[in-house]
Amino acid sequence: MTSGKAYSNLHELCKKVGGRLSGSPQMYKAEAWGQATLKDAGADKVYLQECMVPHWTRSGKDIAWYTYKDASGKTVKEMLDVLALGNSMGTGKNGVRAGVVYCNNYDDLEKQKDIVKGKIVFFNYPFNEKYLQTFRAYGESGAYRRSGPSRAAKYGAIAVVIRSMSGSTDNNPHTGATAYDSAYPKIPAAAMGLRDADKLSELMKTGKKIELFYQSNAHFLPDTIGHNVIGEFTGSTFPDQYITVGGHLDSWDPAEGAHDDGTGCVHSIEVLRALKAIGYKPAHTIRIVLFANEENGLRGGAKYGEVAKEKNEKHLFALESDAGGFTPRGFSFSMPKDRLEKIQPWVKLLEPFGISSFDQGGGGADVSPLNRLLNVPVSEFRPDGQRYFDLHHARNDIFENVNKRELELGAVSMTALIYLIDKYGL
Amino acid sequence: MTSGKAYSNLHELCKKVGGRLSGSPQMYKAEAWGQATLKDAGADKVYLQECMVPHWTRSGKDIAWYTYKDASGKTVKEMLDVLALGNSMGTGKNGVRAGVVYCNNYDDLEKQKDIVKGKIVFFNYPFNEKYLQTFRAYGESGAYRRSGPSRAAKYGAIAVVIRSMSGSTDNNPHTGATAYDSAYPKIPAAAMGLRDADKLSELMKTGKKIELFYQSNAHFLPDTIGHNVIGEFTGSTFPDQYITVGGHLDSWDPAEGAHDDGTGCVHSIEVLRALKAIGYKPAHTIRIVLFANEENGLRGGAKYGEVAKEKNEKHLFALESDAGGFTPRGFSFSMPKDRLEKIQPWVKLLEPFGISSFDQGGGGADVSPLNRLLNVPVSEFRPDGQRYFDLHHARNDIFENVNKRELELGAVSMTALIYLIDKYGL
Repeated sequence: MTSGKAYSNLHELCKKVGGRLSGSPQMYKAEAWGQATLKDAGADKVYLQECMVPHWTRSGKDIAWYTYKDASGKTVKEMLDVLALGNSMGTGKNGVRAGVVYCNNYDDLEKQKDIVKGKIVFFNYPFNEKYLQTFRAYGESGAYRRSGPSRAAKYGAIAVVIRSMSGSTDNNPHTGATAYDSAYPKIPAAAMGLRDADKLSELMKTGKKIELFYQSNAHFLPDTIGHNVIGEFTGSTFPDQYITVGGHLDSWDPAEGAHDDGTGCVHSIEVLRALKAIGYKPAHTIRIVLFANEENGLRGGAKYGEVAKEKNEKHLFALESDAGGFTPRGFSFSMPKDRLEKIQPWVKLLEPFGISSFDQGGGGADVSPLNRLLNVPVSEFRPDGQRYFDLHHARNDIFENVNKRELELGAVSMTALIYLIDKYGL
Repeated sequence: MTSGKAYSNLHELCKKVGGRLSGSPQMYKAEAWGQATLKDAGADKVYLQECMVPHWTRSGKDIAWYTYKDASGKTVKEMLDVLALGNSMGTGKNGVRAGVVYCNNYDDLEKQKDIVKGKIVFFNYPFNEKYLQTFRAYGESGAYRRSGPSRAAKYGAIAVVIRSMSGSTDNNPHTGATAYDSAYPKIPAAAMGLRDADKLSELMKTGKKIELFYQSNAHFLPDTIGHNVIGEFTGSTFPDQYITVGGHLDSWDPAEGAHDDGTGCVHSIEVLRALKAIGYKPAHTIRIVLFANEENGLRGGAKYGEVAKEKNEKHLFALESDAGGFTPRGFSFSMPKDRLEKIQPWVKLLEPFGISSFDQGGGGADVSPLNRLLNVPVSEFRPDGQRYFDLHHARNDIFENVNKRELELGAVSMTALIYLIDKYGL
């Protein structure tokens, strides 16, 4: 808590590199930062693991507005603050303009499928604020970001706009990847902020005829070469048995990727640095992995799992931090119930760092291939999630919104868990 | 979480009233706000409980700088961002100017007691960042704010400056009450920000001769009339048995008193509003108390306890929220061990709101007289405290630094605890 480097490392990543989407120039700067920072942290070996990554680019400012006629028949124009969804197609420079079909959810879409053709569909599915676990609300509403465009394209929609996946009090739009179904046309899609979504939905409830304009230059360039950045702390007893600790190095473009997932990267690096700093000699090789391309492809995590399988590597455990740099609350594990029960008493040991539970289920996207392909027990760091979706994939995911103590407690918690697993096994 | 009013109530208090130190015009505005908001929340009865309160006033901007000679013999002047400590004496309009005696702690002061006369003592006691519980660090370093001025005056110091009680990364000074020992002269005292304190202490380590200037118009006016604002939800079975829930209405002057203790006030009001909203009929009378003058006198809490004792009121329980509006973690209780053990199973019931422990010890300043005078079991809401001392008593304790979800979870937790106590006893 007094000599940690997670906070200053994060400052560097956020302020000297910034947003670092796969394929962008900042991706390469981030890879260089990762290698240098792992070396500074004392890694015995630092190397890159190549993988092809998608190269989607926003290419400028996404623009949207809508018009309607007021009581006197005068046309009113309202700007919408939007961000094209990641991996979505742009509109061409002339944009698209059409009437709007309002849907709270997919049931609404099905009911209105006959009037969707040629229109822009507005999915206003709300983030369920009743869940304590904000990730649960994200999972539910995320379906509209991922599948909404193709579901609407199936009935002939020409574009989709969605309510951002957030419960925030501001109007920042939240981007994030969409996934087109190849059976239907790939139509443009954007997210709007919550206040705009509220205003537009209120207006549509009055029965007003709305026309919406959307213009975006978003497009794909050819896949390009990216890398997982790996630093190793060589095991003293079992150098060829691995414990993986990682976060993802890429981030969305509107901000600095501070909580998503700069904090996961500096958490992971700090595990290695802190164990070195206290003079610990791990039995197993501890591999810190800064994964490429979690946000719009998961190519880095997939590559890491594939290579581990090809090489028949022995992996003891993999831990991921990709839920923000907030106060620690727990860890979730995907592993057999009896093994999780065995380590439950460790919760008490981690209480001084804020941890109060080990739960079954979950492990993070980047380590999931290890679990799926090699049956490796995987875990995810679970910090307090109340503020996460206020800034997730939005322009306020910046260094200033990370608290030093909260960040460092996360790094300490993860270090302690890795120490216990290295020393006492799983 | 979707229809709560804590957040909008806090917005009103912070933005329409603002900082509300005892005796200030805003104190009266806050009392009016409290009465109106309790009525809106559905209180059966709203009234004021009068008490005399101290009336300390900063009266303008506190100013400080220091000078030293650089290598070439040129005088360098550095401004210090300071706030007079609450209840401290000003310097008169000409200020004070003197050499500085540096002390890390009281041991340092004792060692240097012979050179303190006529000087300004700088207490640079650090906030211990190694504690998970930031309140523990506050308790330790707080000794220098409370007693530092008189300890230094004992040896003839003419003023005291202290390192703020915080572990923040910014340079905002943090005020808070000092308490003069009547045996010694009441000397002026101010807190400086952490970056200034670091810079000044680094400079002093080089052996440089430092002169410090401090000017403040702080002074006391005669005690004035303040009030506890009380709203009652009348008990259906035991109307003359009370459960008290409260926070303090006063706040320091540099900001809006958002977390300290606007959140405690709106938490408490929300307990009443939420129980009314779900149609609950409490067995006991639930009294919401917005206490006067916690910050620099505790006259409101003292009065409430005295009156309860005079009237021989029967109090079942008292709960305070004065640790900020962050994500709930637990409740602390001052009551017999066996009674706390009896309610431990309730932790599970409160887990959906973020609560993970009931701990022995503590209950909050304003309800402590009830415990001391009438042996009432008391409790304090314990949210996550990692960010609290970044803004406590400083100019960044504003509405914008309160998160809606975190605030509302606190209100829900408190409501659930009060429901359980009213229904099942203690």
